[in-house]
Amino acid sequence: MTWQNYKETAQDGDLVQLLGRGHKSHFIRLKSGEVFQTHRGVIKHDDIIGEVWGKKLLSHQGNPFYLMQPGLADIIKETKRNTQIMYPKDIGYVLMVMGIGAGQKVLEAGTGSGALTSAFAFMVGPTGHVYSYERKPENLALAKANLRKIGLDDCVSFKLGDASQGFTERQVDAVFLDLRNPYDYIAQAKASLKSGGFIGTIVPTVNQVIRVLQSLRNEHFVFIEVCELLLRFYKPEWERLRPTDRMVAHTGFLIFGRSVFESEEVDTELA
Amino acid sequence: MTWQNYKETAQDGDLVQLLGRGHKSHFIRLKSGEVFQTHRGVIKHDDIIGEVWGKKLLSHQGNPFYLMQPGLADIIKETKRNTQIMYPKDIGYVLMVMGIGAGQKVLEAGTGSGALTSAFAFMVGPTGHVYSYERKPENLALAKANLRKIGLDDCVSFKLGDASQGFTERQVDAVFLDLRNPYDYIAQAKASLKSGGFIGTIVPTVNQVIRVLQSLRNEHFVFIEVCELLLRFYKPEWERLRPTDRMVAHTGFLIFGRSVFESEEVDTELA
Amino acid sequence: MTWQNYKETAQDGDLVQLLGRGHKSHFIRLKSGEVFQTHRGVIKHDDIIGEVWGKKLLSHQGNPFYLMQPGLADIIKETKRNTQIMYPKDIGYVLMVMGIGAGQKVLEAGTGSGALTSAFAFMVGPTGHVYSYERKPENLALAKANLRKIGLDDCVSFKLGDASQGFTERQVDAVFLDLRNPYDYIAQAKASLKSGGFIGTIVPTVNQVIRVLQSLRNEHFVFIEVCELLLRFYKPEWERLRPTDRMVAHTGFLIFGRSVFESEEVDTELA
Amino acid sequence: MTWQNYKETAQDGDLVQLLGRGHKSHFIRLKSGEVFQTHRGVIKHDDIIGEVWGKKLLSHQGNPFYLMQPGLADIIKETKRNTQIMYPKDIGYVLMVMGIGAGQKVLEAGTGSGALTSAFAFMVGPTGHVYSYERKPENLALAKANLRKIGLDDCVSFKLGDASQGFTERQVDAVFLDLRNPYDYIAQAKASLKSGGFIGTIVPTVNQVIRVLQSLRNEHFVFIEVCELLLRFYKPEWERLRPTDRMVAHTGFLIFGRSVFESEEVDTELA
Repeated sequence: MTWQNYKETAQDGDLVQLLGRGHKSHFIRLKSGEVFQTHRGVIKHDDIIGEVWGKKLLSHQGNPFYLMQPGLADIIKETKRNTQIMYPKDIGYVLMVMGIGAGQKVLEAGTGSGALTSAFAFMVGPTGHVYSYERKPENLALAKANLRKIGLDDCVSFKLGDASQGFTERQVDAVFLDLRNPYDYIAQAKASLKSGGFIGTIVPTVNQVIRVLQSLRNEHFVFIEVCELLLRFYKPEWERLRPTDRMVAHTGFLIFGRSVFESEEVDTELA
Repeated sequence: MTWQNYKETAQDGDLVQLLGRGHKSHFIRLKSGEVFQTHRGVIKHDDIIGEVWGKKLLSHQGNPFYLMQPGLADIIKETKRNTQIMYPKDIGYVLMVMGIGAGQKVLEAGTGSGALTSAFAFMVGPTGHVYSYERKPENLALAKANLRKIGLDDCVSFKLGDASQGFTERQVDAVFLDLRNPYDYIAQAKASLKSGGFIGTIVPTVNQVIRVLQSLRNEHFVFIEVCELLLRFYKPEWERLRPTDRMVAHTGFLIFGRSVFESEEVDTELA
Repeated sequence: MTWQNYKETAQDGDLVQLLGRGHKSHFIRLKSGEVFQTHRGVIKHDDIIGEVWGKKLLSHQGNPFYLMQPGLADIIKETKRNTQIMYPKDIGYVLMVMGIGAGQKVLEAGTGSGALTSAFAFMVGPTGHVYSYERKPENLALAKANLRKIGLDDCVSFKLGDASQGFTERQVDAVFLDLRNPYDYIAQAKASLKSGGFIGTIVPTVNQVIRVLQSLRNEHFVFIEVCELLLRFYKPEWERLRPTDRMVAHTGFLIFGRSVFESEEVDTELA
Repeated sequence: MTWQNYKETAQDGDLVQLLGRGHKSHFIRLKSGEVFQTHRGVIKHDDIIGEVWGKKLLSHQGNPFYLMQPGLADIIKETKRNTQIMYPKDIGYVLMVMGIGAGQKVLEAGTGSGALTSAFAFMVGPTGHVYSYERKPENLALAKANLRKIGLDDCVSFKLGDASQGFTERQVDAVFLDLRNPYDYIAQAKASLKSGGFIGTIVPTVNQVIRVLQSLRNEHFVFIEVCELLLRFYKPEWERLRPTDRMVAHTGFLIFGRSVFESEEVDTELA
């Protein structure tokens, strides 16, 4: 059960987003008897349960918080983390390009804190499945906890293991490598990927892009794309509309490719 | 049935992507007895049916085409159109921010050619639903045909109607306005949107952004965001890695907001 | 005399740049008997005078500082300011587009702290001249001091005055408006500008751009351009080359136009 | 004599810019008896000589052309070329960062068509000098012709020679390498550069950036910067203000460094 099966009012057990001043966002799972605490005051969960969505609640100090159901980007951004996590802008594009949706089998190497895993699980749904490999037990434990919190852990097999040993799955629809040296695991990814399937990865440096491209060529992947997404926010004031002064200038380079059936040398024009 | 329920080999009735030289992409639905025709030669559908995914097929002229299952971005980009369509980069981010996924009810005004409709239908799946309004019968007919082609028309109610008259649905999870003057329909959108739900729109000019912001304020939407996404491709050659010379510099400004329960004046710091 | 008339070694009276750890830059004018003081230690001016350029000097605490002659961008960036100043990326482009060089007469409205004034003065040199108007005496005093410090004050006439009253100069080669409401002074700028001359301005919001464009049309300016420059830095490490994480996302929109002889309505295709 | 020493009306011998519909720009040097010819009709030079700047002239077909004095960016963009030339956005920033102005000695390797040479010559003026090396005689001839056309050839020494052989000049203020393999000539550049002077280069690929950075480190350059400039134009229509649909996404990566006196290993924090 994902966090999205909401009734018209907030229920005991719901994952809710409380949005306060300065767009500050808090996520809590409602539990009768508990208390939501911030430096802007406290609100009892029992005063939230039964309230209509979009309601403005006041802390005991009189500070306002709106009662909201979180969107996927909100969930991702607030993922509890001990690793760098992917940004919604990049995840959204990955989902689109790799065609990840209901019913698909997706393999991920580098679970990290589970942010991308959440998006994959959300998209493939109960008829699909996500296989997520991670080398560090502490990361895997955190990711599991994060997925359980949003009710998506049933769609995911968490696997402790090193990508260099390869993956036991075969014929998956898509493989995403979210680790430091994806270029070392392109062959392993290919072995698990169905013919015609999508491979994807994200890396921060151009040196890594170069090595990934070499590996993809060596393994005869085709229709390779390298890109990056720049997200520019504007101050939403209609009388003084302008881009924000500063922005995140770089998250990573996205690289995509597709596997083919033949193992022979690939025509350059097709690569 | 979406285009994604594939077997290990291409079947009669499958929607397939044939990828040729220069990353040129062709979409066909396989039908025994028919013929795929391009200026690079022809291939009989019967010579495709039964082939494994990722196979390199040759036209009668010897030109290569890879047999692929399309990703969502491929589908979107190749949508047959008589209107401007949204780009995958923008659609992916809309899905993430507005939390559109399995089981949700989404209302769209401005069906156009149905590209965004396809993405919404793909994501909400059989347990959700898309209500899509369009003023022009010829657009609606094209959009219907496009959705049927990819097997997603069951998830969509196509509605001929002018947004100024409002929408019959109530309590939908998200409303997206994809038409020239979204600022004129913010009140109508609010009437259909559940409290706490997401509104979104995309417009090409800053003048339109200004008017949308005014309308969102007037209707007491909160947590408003304005942004744009720049997608920059690199030539995927590891020995000469560089951004492409030219890029799409502008598609549109994305604007998001959330409805709230109260109709009273909204605190500026929350807006 | 500009700051650039250097001998092979640093001389008493020279304006020098001391570049320390973390690319931290200090500007001082050498004067025998004085002392350069930072939290990383002190260096006597007499220990700097006579040293060769590019020399690594050590503070009494052993911290290194390189002895450098500043570039124009360095000078601009370090301008002592009580107003927002223009960025080198924008100034460089203004100089190029408006063709500002040796011998030209340039009028500036909005002296501010004199950063742009410095660049104009540097470029027009002793055979040209800059006329710079400023409404606030305290700004004008600071700008004068800044120009004197770099030895360029002889090329500039500092004028206390409100742009709404117009400018006494006629037939200048270029006019740059660097104030909040340039759209209010387009007619005044035109009166001072030679026929065929360049007008330029920079504004932070799109609302201001819209108003400037209206005014330029009203005053029959032609060949109008609106643009912005994004400067993206990379971490200069060859083993891990990547864009910096954050960047200045917006400084301002640059707008340029050219005056024409006729006052009749201008052909749209030429505007 | 540069192209900028203009009288109030166009004179025989002046370099003029004729700006027509669609911002189409033509450069001619006025010569009594000659004829300006385009597919939009002809205008006799004698009908231009004596006219006031900014005047709208009509071709014999009635098409309008404005009589203008060109700006430096105009000159650069219209440089007759047989090589890739640098863009005004990049040149402007180079001038600012490297502090190139009146009286300086600048060495350039890779004259090409002379576009950057023009900007350097324009800026250093009669009291400075530009030394420009080029391997191919045909390029050098074209560059000479281009500089002569705009009256700046007196400020430039054109030198036929291969950068690998080094340069005869010593103690120049700045060296710019505008050729394919600048990383091979960093030592030669250093030998000609004064201690504390600026080095700069521009390269299109990240692989080249990596090699330049290695060479700069090897030669103990400090305060190294890598950046790129993105120039985004807007359609200058106040009722429908928006970025243009397409833009030049990449011209090159700019790399700057400064030489120091010591040849010892440089402190990483200073590099």
